[in-house]
Amino acid sequence: MSATVLSHPMVLVYIDPVTMEIAAMQIRPAAETDADAIWRIMEPTIRAGETYALPMDGTRAQAFDYWYARGNDVFVADDAGEVIGTYYMRTNRQGGGSHVANCGYMTGAWANGRGVARAMCAHSLDEAKRRGYTAMQFNFVVSTNERAVRAWQGMGFAIVGRLPGAFRHPRLGLVDAFVMFRNL
Amino acid sequence: MSATVLSHPMVLVYIDPVTMEIAAMQIRPAAETDADAIWRIMEPTIRAGETYALPMDGTRAQAFDYWYARGNDVFVADDAGEVIGTYYMRTNRQGGGSHVANCGYMTGAWANGRGVARAMCAHSLDEAKRRGYTAMQFNFVVSTNERAVRAWQGMGFAIVGRLPGAFRHPRLGLVDAFVMFRNL
Repeated sequence: MSATVLSHPMVLVYIDPVTMEIAAMQIRPAAETDADAIWRIMEPTIRAGETYALPMDGTRAQAFDYWYARGNDVFVADDAGEVIGTYYMRTNRQGGGSHVANCGYMTGAWANGRGVARAMCAHSLDEAKRRGYTAMQFNFVVSTNERAVRAWQGMGFAIVGRLPGAFRHPRLGLVDAFVMFRNL
Repeated sequence: MSATVLSHPMVLVYIDPVTMEIAAMQIRPAAETDADAIWRIMEPTIRAGETYALPMDGTRAQAFDYWYARGNDVFVADDAGEVIGTYYMRTNRQGGGSHVANCGYMTGAWANGRGVARAMCAHSLDEAKRRGYTAMQFNFVVSTNERAVRAWQGMGFAIVGRLPGAFRHPRLGLVDAFVMFRNL
């Protein structure tokens, strides 16, 4: 557990409550050289199959087709040179829907509990505003992913839709998914 | 206005209540030769910008990128050789979400009021079931498109989400969009 002391669009500074060590996490656009690190985060998330609607046995190429889809910009959370999280940002819909951004976030399992997802979300909200979006929508938050649901609610997102049984959870069977939304 | 007397997955037979003429509409997979007819339906819909989140000034190629996107199957409603409607079917999400189909429908403005959208929707529900989907979701039904909302409700869809101000309507400004869902 860590206490966040400063959340800035580009740098998250936090103090480890046990060691009192101060650390800084930088959130920056992904470079080509981050691909291996991003896959190290994505692969266990996809294999677990509990939070993203992606094939559990999908290849790296298939996963990257999704993460780096046309129109996506990919960012990473860089903790002193180690990539511990990644997110993408895209325009959720074209035309009359193009004022709404969409993002997806993944944190390395080993880095959970350090506020990485929240830091990336804060970064994405600032970045989206800077790009002129006026709202952000998450299309498919698996309802049993309670940590994510609480985190996004804490970041100002409201549940605006419930998709009944829209996700086949590998242990729990069909569970609901949420649509979450907030203005910027 | 016409009275539908038989709705079959492949053929919709209706009687014109004025002329008592019997007509049959066939719903079938689109052929390459249907492209011009499909664009004749899509172009005015896109230019009006009131129902689909697509750029109002988009080209035919951009519109087809959307309609014929990877994974989409396109169908047409064929009224004695004249294409009067079109729809696409796709898997809404991969992996744990792949049991849910997604469709989009467009009817030629000149053929409105003849039950074309409902016929295509009925066809798509049968086709989706046949393909093993167990639900269908519409991700973005513009709330002011009341005829569509009512038609889909009449076809068993429920509004499961309301996206606040998610659509920039060319006359009405920001309006809500609905997520609609039904099991198969």
